[in-house]
Amino acid sequence: MNELENEEAVFEIGVVIPRKIIQEKDESSDCACVLVEEFKKVGFVVERVVGIADEFIKLAAPLETLGRTAAELQIKKRTHIGMDLQFEVEEVEAFVKQPDGSVFSWCERFHCYCHLIYGIVNNGNSAIKLKFDGKEIDWETGENLIQKLESENIVKQVFPLHDEKTRKKLLRTWALHWWGLTSQPIDEIYSYYGAKIAIYFAFLGMYTRWLFFLAVFGLTLQLIDLRSTKLVVLPVFFVVVILWAVMFCQFWKRKNSALLARWPLSSAVAADPGYKIPGRRDSSLQPPMDLLKIFETDRAKGKQVFQRHEWLGRFMRFRNDAFIIFSIICLQLPFELAYAHLYEVIGSDAMKFGLTAVYLFAIQYITKIGGRVSVRLIKNENNENTEKRADSLVYKVFGLYFMQTYIGIFYHALLHRNFATLRKVLIQRLLLSEVLENLVENSLPYLKYSYKKYSVRHKKKREKGESADRIQFSSRVEKEYLKPSYSASIGEELEDGLFDDFLELALQFGMILMFACAFPPAFAFATVNNIMEIRTDALKLLAILRRPVPRAAATVGAWLNIFQFLILMSICTNCALLVWLYDEEGKWKVEPGLAAILIMEHVLLLIKFGFSRLVPEEPAWVRANRAKHTTQAQDLCSKKLLRTISGGERNNGEMKVKRL
Amino acid sequence: MNELENEEAVFEIGVVIPRKIIQEKDESSDCACVLVEEFKKVGFVVERVVGIADEFIKLAAPLETLGRTAAELQIKKRTHIGMDLQFEVEEVEAFVKQPDGSVFSWCERFHCYCHLIYGIVNNGNSAIKLKFDGKEIDWETGENLIQKLESENIVKQVFPLHDEKTRKKLLRTWALHWWGLTSQPIDEIYSYYGAKIAIYFAFLGMYTRWLFFLAVFGLTLQLIDLRSTKLVVLPVFFVVVILWAVMFCQFWKRKNSALLARWPLSSAVAADPGYKIPGRRDSSLQPPMDLLKIFETDRAKGKQVFQRHEWLGRFMRFRNDAFIIFSIICLQLPFELAYAHLYEVIGSDAMKFGLTAVYLFAIQYITKIGGRVSVRLIKNENNENTEKRADSLVYKVFGLYFMQTYIGIFYHALLHRNFATLRKVLIQRLLLSEVLENLVENSLPYLKYSYKKYSVRHKKKREKGESADRIQFSSRVEKEYLKPSYSASIGEELEDGLFDDFLELALQFGMILMFACAFPPAFAFATVNNIMEIRTDALKLLAILRRPVPRAAATVGAWLNIFQFLILMSICTNCALLVWLYDEEGKWKVEPGLAAILIMEHVLLLIKFGFSRLVPEEPAWVRANRAKHTTQAQDLCSKKLLRTISGGERNNGEMKVKRL
Repeated sequence: MNELENEEAVFEIGVVIPRKIIQEKDESSDCACVLVEEFKKVGFVVERVVGIADEFIKLAAPLETLGRTAAELQIKKRTHIGMDLQFEVEEVEAFVKQPDGSVFSWCERFHCYCHLIYGIVNNGNSAIKLKFDGKEIDWETGENLIQKLESENIVKQVFPLHDEKTRKKLLRTWALHWWGLTSQPIDEIYSYYGAKIAIYFAFLGMYTRWLFFLAVFGLTLQLIDLRSTKLVVLPVFFVVVILWAVMFCQFWKRKNSALLARWPLSSAVAADPGYKIPGRRDSSLQPPMDLLKIFETDRAKGKQVFQRHEWLGRFMRFRNDAFIIFSIICLQLPFELAYAHLYEVIGSDAMKFGLTAVYLFAIQYITKIGGRVSVRLIKNENNENTEKRADSLVYKVFGLYFMQTYIGIFYHALLHRNFATLRKVLIQRLLLSEVLENLVENSLPYLKYSYKKYSVRHKKKREKGESADRIQFSSRVEKEYLKPSYSASIGEELEDGLFDDFLELALQFGMILMFACAFPPAFAFATVNNIMEIRTDALKLLAILRRPVPRAAATVGAWLNIFQFLILMSICTNCALLVWLYDEEGKWKVEPGLAAILIMEHVLLLIKFGFSRLVPEEPAWVRANRAKHTTQAQDLCSKKLLRTISGGERNNGEMKVKRL
Repeated sequence: MNELENEEAVFEIGVVIPRKIIQEKDESSDCACVLVEEFKKVGFVVERVVGIADEFIKLAAPLETLGRTAAELQIKKRTHIGMDLQFEVEEVEAFVKQPDGSVFSWCERFHCYCHLIYGIVNNGNSAIKLKFDGKEIDWETGENLIQKLESENIVKQVFPLHDEKTRKKLLRTWALHWWGLTSQPIDEIYSYYGAKIAIYFAFLGMYTRWLFFLAVFGLTLQLIDLRSTKLVVLPVFFVVVILWAVMFCQFWKRKNSALLARWPLSSAVAADPGYKIPGRRDSSLQPPMDLLKIFETDRAKGKQVFQRHEWLGRFMRFRNDAFIIFSIICLQLPFELAYAHLYEVIGSDAMKFGLTAVYLFAIQYITKIGGRVSVRLIKNENNENTEKRADSLVYKVFGLYFMQTYIGIFYHALLHRNFATLRKVLIQRLLLSEVLENLVENSLPYLKYSYKKYSVRHKKKREKGESADRIQFSSRVEKEYLKPSYSASIGEELEDGLFDDFLELALQFGMILMFACAFPPAFAFATVNNIMEIRTDALKLLAILRRPVPRAAATVGAWLNIFQFLILMSICTNCALLVWLYDEEGKWKVEPGLAAILIMEHVLLLIKFGFSRLVPEEPAWVRANRAKHTTQAQDLCSKKLLRTISGGERNNGEMKVKRL
């Protein structure tokens, strides 16, 4: 069976080393050869590919190697009784298979790969001399090979590779499956990209599917003449939109639970992936494991220490958030208002254009600074794990973008108090932002990729004196190496490209929801855009970018809270819009109409917060299934466990009796 | 060790049978003797007490009997590694002891007692003839003895007995410990009364402790002259009060978690007590165990059935709630308004008095009907367990009381729009309701008890012709039998006396919070009242009432949600009060002041809902401790479990391979 596995081994990790100019005669001291030998020793299937500018070592791990590593790492996997247990090679049948039939998920495989690659050390008694392009390196005893070579700039990068077969299949069934509208092969996306990306696409799909309803409603409102019945129809539309949004958020939580019940993600993995290339270290205020030890020895003191730790962390978090909110209000708000005001005041189009250019340049800079400040602030927080830290970052950076995106619209709305102008601004923003962003998002990586290819060709040409046309990238792995990675615009430390995709979605959600009363057909815009977004995002991931490093997080994370915050905001803004509509002369007299709007607002706020009590986040069948599993597991090993516990305790008990 | 236990066995259950007039000669067929014999056979320590009108069989269970029964019942108990496992007599050391050092909690003991008492059946081959006061009964094979005797009216009641030693100790350290203010021996209350009652007193204590702060603040406001700075000081007071309430609710949740970490309540027990005297049967729409079986055989169909079951239940619940709300608004609201209006309109005091008497009579009736309708409605809901069902009842009945208590005040407030009148009404209500209720609550049971004693004496006197003075109740158990039980005013089916105690607390909380701006010193009233309440409630439980049947529920349940709802309401009502205060001429023009109040309202609402995100419900040390325990347990039996699971699965796996 293992041979069968070996035959169709898929190469999933690439290691890049520079193409050698001087060929070593002695293979035993040739750095590349040693590397390959070490990889083989560890259990990898290795393939060497010589590219134009670099050389690539492709690695594949047979099931046997993976199993051994997983057992070594004590990876916890979900078993058939629903409990997470440490992986054991012999008992492989006890563990739930992935939806595609394999034993390990892409996330677990990647974890094993990293452990194996970065686990190669010199176990001999003496240093080994390695030669590379005339350089000589001493691989000392106990030294880590890859880290050594990375510091010497011989290993240029370790990156995950696309699996050509699956990629092509996904291209066909997912990215180019245009007439599928919102249907996507979520299970296969999960198998190929891991849980976090699959969850994003599931969310996008469900959101778009739900949007259809409002798109039809909004368009109908636009098509029939509103002028006469505006005061009745618009509040109705507003109420429907808010109810829709509240229900969407709650039902997404249910859908998320259902997805997680289908994918055998161990809950520990879901909570803390910890799958990262070593070298990137987390800095936490105080690791909780130390605290637990104190807790063990002295309960009362431990409780105190724990509480101090908890409140300190909470205070730091609060301080950071307060700092960010304060800077947004004091620094960014005046800047944005100044721009909006100047834009209104300035008469000439040329000046306007110039101003906008300066503004666009400035906000690029501001966003970058904001992102960097946030990342630095977060380092002082003791968030439990990487995903929590990423969430904390998302909240902070979203504050920036929220101000940037909406303050201009608020300004226009307040200044003119005129639905027609507001509508114009909204159409501009929607069209511009959505279309432009989609274009930039997809063309920029492609341009980067093309430029990189060109520069490699150009360099070669100068070196060899050949014409650039004749240099072709024959090896796929080299092309992949030149592709840009899936990274966030705010920095790579905590978030990957999903940040930008979710940000776009959240800003769109806020835009269409907060001004729903002013421009009902916005929902149709958004629907069309999202249908495109599904396919273009898929194309981007499959064709333009490298395969991303998998993340195990199993929920949308901070973004759902942001969506819920936007719903709250939109209840308030839409009420304000309705008040304007009603109170056209600006008398501000509290008449029955205004009072009705105020009451409606309160009722909607109540519904917003009450609905989550009405519909639980977890479907009953998921809960029942889990409860049954837990009981089963406990009953299975109840007796053995008891003996172990009371064995440990009996000694203490005897001592107590003697003392008495 | 067992002998030691036997010697100081405490009698915890009493069985009441009528005092015989005719003495049987043959002990083997005398009903009382057979009963005592059977109890002894089961393992009880039995004591017979002959009272004036009845005879009592007191039962005590030695540790050995309890352990055997617990193992038989497969009771799950918390072990030292934090996991809940089935009780085994041999491994008793593995289980966490109660705070008072015993193995079983009062709740578990009661469960065992019930199981043993109601588990006595005739195992012989022939019916046994029992004689009692000349009556002859056939105890058939396989028939349940107690149920048989209950149906024949020979066993009049089975009820829990007070433990005189602990009761006296609690009287000293708790009920009569007046200068302790809010300090109470919560652990001992838990040991004696079970979790639910202990949680109530912990809640009452913390609430009162927190109230001190507002009492001082409110009194200070009252003492200094407000007239000049009213418009500044009152909004500040309002904001402080709301923040106080929001923090109180969240910190109570933390306190609750901490309490549960201290008490070894198994989570299964906490979720579903199921400790009830048989005979009272639950009627559920469809037991979930059946559903699980369907789920096992066919996943897709099972999921569908589950979902249908879930949504049907939710719909029923929604329909019932809608029905209750509709009836309150359409039937109760007009009635209450009519009373309030008539009371205002009528001039003569005599008429007013008459009206109030009629009203008081009517609301007694309305409340009773409401409670009965609610109980009947709830029978159609498929709530998961008894506590959930009780919660559902609490919500429904609270709606009734809410209307009854506050609608009058709202009416006065709206009609007069005058702070002085509102204040007068509030003082009336606070003083009247609190003082009167406390009086009624404590004297009514005592009067009942006295009347019962009197009627027994009277009956005896007539029978024997002696003078009533000479008949004394010598046996304590007979006195206890005559004491009233801890029952709710709305009916005994789902709730016990805690319902009335919590209701009083919630109505007080609403009263002082919703009109905080109108009458700041109300908090001082409430504080004084609650300090008294702690001791009088304790006295009532210890001296006036029978020992209540223990309930295992580990939280305040529906009441916390009601408190949170009252906070929401109070944000809105106080804002309205402030608007009146500000807008004395009733111009209703939106000026900066009114706008500021509106903004303040929204900010407070945001804080109300955001705060629970800021401070988690569970302290970090509780969570960390639990997580560690779970990991420990999983690691302990990981291998054995795996083998069991994969053993079962391997067969399936082999079959699959063959088919391929």
